[in-house]
Amino acid sequence: MQLNDPAVWTARYRAVREHSLALAAPLSDEDCGAQSMPDASPIKWHLAHTTWFFETFILEALEPGFQPFHPEFRVLFNSYYNGVGQKHPRPQRGLLTRPPMAQVRAYRADVDARIAALIGGGLDAAGRSRLAGLLVLGLQHEQQHQELMLTDVKHLLAQNGLYPEYLAQPLPAAAPAGKAAWLAFDGGVTEVGYDGDGFCFDNELPRHRQFVEPFELASRLVTNGEYLAFIDAGGYRDAGLWLAEGWDWVCAQGLDKPLYWHQDDEGRWCEFTLMGLQPLDPDRPLAHISLFEADAYAHWAGARLPTEAEWEHAARQSGAAPGAPPALPHPGGASATGTLRDMFDHCWQWTSSSYAPYPGFRPAEGAIGEYNGKFMVNQYVLRGSSCATPAGHARASYRNFFPAGARWQFTGIRLAR
Amino acid sequence: MQLNDPAVWTARYRAVREHSLALAAPLSDEDCGAQSMPDASPIKWHLAHTTWFFETFILEALEPGFQPFHPEFRVLFNSYYNGVGQKHPRPQRGLLTRPPMAQVRAYRADVDARIAALIGGGLDAAGRSRLAGLLVLGLQHEQQHQELMLTDVKHLLAQNGLYPEYLAQPLPAAAPAGKAAWLAFDGGVTEVGYDGDGFCFDNELPRHRQFVEPFELASRLVTNGEYLAFIDAGGYRDAGLWLAEGWDWVCAQGLDKPLYWHQDDEGRWCEFTLMGLQPLDPDRPLAHISLFEADAYAHWAGARLPTEAEWEHAARQSGAAPGAPPALPHPGGASATGTLRDMFDHCWQWTSSSYAPYPGFRPAEGAIGEYNGKFMVNQYVLRGSSCATPAGHARASYRNFFPAGARWQFTGIRLAR
Amino acid sequence: MQLNDPAVWTARYRAVREHSLALAAPLSDEDCGAQSMPDASPIKWHLAHTTWFFETFILEALEPGFQPFHPEFRVLFNSYYNGVGQKHPRPQRGLLTRPPMAQVRAYRADVDARIAALIGGGLDAAGRSRLAGLLVLGLQHEQQHQELMLTDVKHLLAQNGLYPEYLAQPLPAAAPAGKAAWLAFDGGVTEVGYDGDGFCFDNELPRHRQFVEPFELASRLVTNGEYLAFIDAGGYRDAGLWLAEGWDWVCAQGLDKPLYWHQDDEGRWCEFTLMGLQPLDPDRPLAHISLFEADAYAHWAGARLPTEAEWEHAARQSGAAPGAPPALPHPGGASATGTLRDMFDHCWQWTSSSYAPYPGFRPAEGAIGEYNGKFMVNQYVLRGSSCATPAGHARASYRNFFPAGARWQFTGIRLAR
Amino acid sequence: MQLNDPAVWTARYRAVREHSLALAAPLSDEDCGAQSMPDASPIKWHLAHTTWFFETFILEALEPGFQPFHPEFRVLFNSYYNGVGQKHPRPQRGLLTRPPMAQVRAYRADVDARIAALIGGGLDAAGRSRLAGLLVLGLQHEQQHQELMLTDVKHLLAQNGLYPEYLAQPLPAAAPAGKAAWLAFDGGVTEVGYDGDGFCFDNELPRHRQFVEPFELASRLVTNGEYLAFIDAGGYRDAGLWLAEGWDWVCAQGLDKPLYWHQDDEGRWCEFTLMGLQPLDPDRPLAHISLFEADAYAHWAGARLPTEAEWEHAARQSGAAPGAPPALPHPGGASATGTLRDMFDHCWQWTSSSYAPYPGFRPAEGAIGEYNGKFMVNQYVLRGSSCATPAGHARASYRNFFPAGARWQFTGIRLAR
Repeated sequence: MQLNDPAVWTARYRAVREHSLALAAPLSDEDCGAQSMPDASPIKWHLAHTTWFFETFILEALEPGFQPFHPEFRVLFNSYYNGVGQKHPRPQRGLLTRPPMAQVRAYRADVDARIAALIGGGLDAAGRSRLAGLLVLGLQHEQQHQELMLTDVKHLLAQNGLYPEYLAQPLPAAAPAGKAAWLAFDGGVTEVGYDGDGFCFDNELPRHRQFVEPFELASRLVTNGEYLAFIDAGGYRDAGLWLAEGWDWVCAQGLDKPLYWHQDDEGRWCEFTLMGLQPLDPDRPLAHISLFEADAYAHWAGARLPTEAEWEHAARQSGAAPGAPPALPHPGGASATGTLRDMFDHCWQWTSSSYAPYPGFRPAEGAIGEYNGKFMVNQYVLRGSSCATPAGHARASYRNFFPAGARWQFTGIRLAR
Repeated sequence: MQLNDPAVWTARYRAVREHSLALAAPLSDEDCGAQSMPDASPIKWHLAHTTWFFETFILEALEPGFQPFHPEFRVLFNSYYNGVGQKHPRPQRGLLTRPPMAQVRAYRADVDARIAALIGGGLDAAGRSRLAGLLVLGLQHEQQHQELMLTDVKHLLAQNGLYPEYLAQPLPAAAPAGKAAWLAFDGGVTEVGYDGDGFCFDNELPRHRQFVEPFELASRLVTNGEYLAFIDAGGYRDAGLWLAEGWDWVCAQGLDKPLYWHQDDEGRWCEFTLMGLQPLDPDRPLAHISLFEADAYAHWAGARLPTEAEWEHAARQSGAAPGAPPALPHPGGASATGTLRDMFDHCWQWTSSSYAPYPGFRPAEGAIGEYNGKFMVNQYVLRGSSCATPAGHARASYRNFFPAGARWQFTGIRLAR
Repeated sequence: MQLNDPAVWTARYRAVREHSLALAAPLSDEDCGAQSMPDASPIKWHLAHTTWFFETFILEALEPGFQPFHPEFRVLFNSYYNGVGQKHPRPQRGLLTRPPMAQVRAYRADVDARIAALIGGGLDAAGRSRLAGLLVLGLQHEQQHQELMLTDVKHLLAQNGLYPEYLAQPLPAAAPAGKAAWLAFDGGVTEVGYDGDGFCFDNELPRHRQFVEPFELASRLVTNGEYLAFIDAGGYRDAGLWLAEGWDWVCAQGLDKPLYWHQDDEGRWCEFTLMGLQPLDPDRPLAHISLFEADAYAHWAGARLPTEAEWEHAARQSGAAPGAPPALPHPGGASATGTLRDMFDHCWQWTSSSYAPYPGFRPAEGAIGEYNGKFMVNQYVLRGSSCATPAGHARASYRNFFPAGARWQFTGIRLAR
Repeated sequence: MQLNDPAVWTARYRAVREHSLALAAPLSDEDCGAQSMPDASPIKWHLAHTTWFFETFILEALEPGFQPFHPEFRVLFNSYYNGVGQKHPRPQRGLLTRPPMAQVRAYRADVDARIAALIGGGLDAAGRSRLAGLLVLGLQHEQQHQELMLTDVKHLLAQNGLYPEYLAQPLPAAAPAGKAAWLAFDGGVTEVGYDGDGFCFDNELPRHRQFVEPFELASRLVTNGEYLAFIDAGGYRDAGLWLAEGWDWVCAQGLDKPLYWHQDDEGRWCEFTLMGLQPLDPDRPLAHISLFEADAYAHWAGARLPTEAEWEHAARQSGAAPGAPPALPHPGGASATGTLRDMFDHCWQWTSSSYAPYPGFRPAEGAIGEYNGKFMVNQYVLRGSSCATPAGHARASYRNFFPAGARWQFTGIRLAR
């Protein structure tokens, strides 16, 4: 990758960085400080950590006479890079009332100016090449955190009996979802992994061959209405539908519905959204379920979840590609037709594939090599993208991953058989 | 109690209420929202809950045509009164980024105005009498939370690697503590409990007789320097000094020093205070230790902790009384002399007495009866008052209480034998 | 204490030691090995540990040329004496399938023979005096474990869906309990603690004065039938009746009845006993409840629990004394009359007194000093004795103690007011 | 499968059933009752549960006028079949001191006689065919438990400070392991899964195609000596070698060596075996490590773990096949040569493949369908067989599986690259 046109790079950098601040704009400083669970982080921490990433992996490496913005930030805003040193304990990120938001904004501005200066000039060719690679990684990293900012703040607001709105806008009723169709795909040796000439994460490489049996995919995502039928049929009470660990999980937590669903005293269902509490829309795609729930639903529906190779194969064959996320951060989904819809932009789709290295996988050198590889155990791959994924971030080879019980992401179901 | 002079009552009410806001003044809105552990609460929550107390127990009972400031606040800011209804989960008070601080200030102003109106007139004699009793209780309640505001925010700031200061003021070195003297007190039948004509909590009543053997009390509190000698002598490694449950507690948590002590790489001790990190002052009273540590230290020193009857008996005999808390919220303590010093105003003093009802104890009617009585199990009584106790709140019959492992209060050691 | 007549001492020693084996007689070796929870121990472990006590504290101290029966037993059968050294982890006592029961019996026989030899002669006067003191302590210690053998095996058998019987004997219906009377006692300065010339534990000393207000005690223990009325009145669902920690305990464990009660599909109550599953007898004393339950029941009944000073004062004034335990190890209880009944021999009676040292308490020197003192925190005193207490073990000054949530002992309720 | 020759089937049945009793022969009834952790079961429970399997799935289905041996055994000895009904809680299997071993032996004899009668005659052709299928499944099931009997009892005995021997036999020193060679295998589309005409489990089906890149396997298993070098090089202290979840696991448990290794005060290593405590033999294969440890070691050694497709492909290509387990239940392993050795009979070999259904996987109908499928999440596949696997049980397509942190099986490392 070459850093040829500083103006282009500067603009690209600025656009991503400003989008993070735009996501925080509807929130008060108080909103930005709280952490609702160890898996989630405060908005302020996201804003600081993404800046720390540029400071630590670019400025510290390439800026002449580097001095840290604040020496303690190296520890406070390190997420999980053991190679960088100590880390503030993850479950206590919400206790960092200092630095205040104003200082985090100043931190962002300072690092942004210094990055802009680096882009502007002074590095030799090798340095410029290295800068380009790290810039792209840093921006992709920030886009990942932009999605987490939305899912983490949704989880936070959902704990509040006031059911606060992130955006005070009405969520219109969706068009009828229609009946899903089964679309058939050929089997054979297929190629999996990234093969373009742009950016991809190390976990999408190397592109390699896999053998896939013929299979069918549902033309659209499972809807709230369909999942409600599963609930009404006793899905959360029938051990026979569940993976053993999933059944233990359901019983231990006393679960009987998706994460943000509520049923009022008259039995009416509603759903907490980033636009506040809304009536449950049966035509919208189901979101915020775990792999355990996805698997049990598929079992009940006489189907199964796709593997990640099947998903990627189908996406390529059908030419599915990310578009723009919906206007409001909530899954919409088109009406079903005979083509493969909603592979992107609405809900991540659980696959049955555990997150594992591709044959020949090689992580980056140094601390940055901790980015992906060390998480490749006891997690499952999700494919596609969601309504919270920033435009331009997703692609067919993209591998998202979460533990089987995670529910706070926009995660839904694409059936296979 | 009679509410005779509205101007006096209004002034008293206003003084206490304004002190709460003054305690929050050095803090940002971000600082006020965080909760460092389930036992502690955010400053914002303290400010709202103390207001809720006046709204729920006074306005709701006595104000004609009462309307709540916000219907959901009844749940959000209920601490533990089952008789009032649902409660927001205690460990999640730090997630209430809404209402914002500004709305909590408005809540305080609204309730204050309505309380002032009630004081000002309109109630009949029975109502005025009831109002007087509840006002005093509400103000005493708010003073208790004022102490917690300081101890809770200290615990919060201590979690932050930046070691932020609550007050940016230097903490001067204390005068030499000198050697403690043993002061002798007679035994016999003594009276315990409140007998004045002002306010006391229900747990200080009824005044009753107890038989006390002759005993001695140390003339002053144990100092940091004395406790350091215990540490240096291996106090945290000698099971024989500890209560069995205390030893399990030490081992499970790997403890080897008081809560806020740190030792740097050169072995120098410092202490986190509300004025930031400070060198450990050997002449100041030891604070922030558990009953387990207090008991082990006493054992090591060849002494024991006093009972609450002994403490109260000695306080009365020697005429010890609360003065003004020190200028900075940190324990000071006078130089030792032959008289009983520092019974108040520096550190609460652990007693060996479990928190239990006095003979004939009777809690108040209704939800407000949950104030004290239901906590009378597995807690231990502390006597005196601390540097964080508001002026005018303490008295010789006052019974503070915490579990044996609590360390975040200003708790210290008065030896007996 | 003097060891004057070896034949008497030998007989006394043998009688206690044989009683332990008699208690194990109805059990198989398999029954003797299992441990149902960390608080309980296997029968085999009780048999070995009581022997370890004699070996460690008597033979090791007084036998010339002492050699341990097995060097590893010092660790395996040490309960909690840090002064003796390492300990096998308490929750893993049930994993000690070796030594086998046969070897434990041989261990008992070996130690018994060596103790008999020591009693028989060879020690000088000082040694004989020391031996006498330790022998009595060892036998009292073994009697305590005899009670635990019954309660621990009851807890073990209760986990088994076969509801096995410890004794295959019918449990006859009790006589009608009749209505309890309130018996009045004078207040004033009273003496508490042991004052006889026989044995007592260190925690019963020194005898000292306490001031007691006038009070009343119920003439008999609360019955199953009375407690059933509390359940039927919603006692387990009314937070207002419970100590706050008790209510948390009830909710966390989902409790709605005493430990060994079962209700069948037709609503009939039965109770697991050492004689297997039996219909619940409304006239027998309630047993196997926690302090939390006892306190809530008393609250509901408009009464309270006695203090230990009240209990001891009443026992002495009324001349209550232990008799023989009932023929079967289950609480019986006499019909109520106008006198104080069932102070002993049926159920231990929770008091509201936390377990604390008496004024001037002094534990024994050395490791044996860990016997009682180090447990004096967060436990509550029970007075009297139970159907599982060996004959000759109890007395009016005896202080039993357990945490507030313990239920597997024969613990019941004596009301006071 | 046809049940043609009753005498052959009877002999096969008897041989497997008698082997279970032979495994228990060195153990006392006490040894057979204890359970050292929830993942392990008592020997008695294994003996009863395997019998329950025949009773529940064969006798109940096929025996005319079926009556259970004991009605409560249906609950007590159900492992995890929700379709069969209630289950005794798994962590409390060690509390089932009743039924006694003698009754479990009688249970085995009773079921064996009734199975023999069924084999002997009376069923029609359909019944005989169904019987044959269930018999084979029941015997394979019992063989799986035979391996668990050895690993579970090893774990139990290891908790005992006496370090008891299961077999009182000396463990001879192994021959020098020599240096491992790297053996190359071709890639391409290969077939995975069972294709014989004998028995296999449902999880080995259907046989299907997978694409495999060219790869190399180490000629032998990693030895104790090699793993010691990893430890000496600081392997347990270098976060960079570990999966993130593995590192958390190491830190939380404070691990620094394999499960059964001990180091004495002079630094000498020894290993607890079924033959008691033995000096660590550097030439024997490493066993009892988790996937986390296997992965970290491979990382340190510049290699990786094989996938299950690679392992099966290599086994078939090289003709590796199970032989007889070693004379003593402990991994031996041959000296390294240029051929693929020790694929079977010594240690199960962790693969990097998560346990997932093969394409087209279909579990059996009814409760027996819970055998495998419901465990296909968050577990990893092990291939080969171990020194504890009964002769005749393993094959190249066999899929064993455990969670990534499991260490009590005979699990070792085959490196790939």
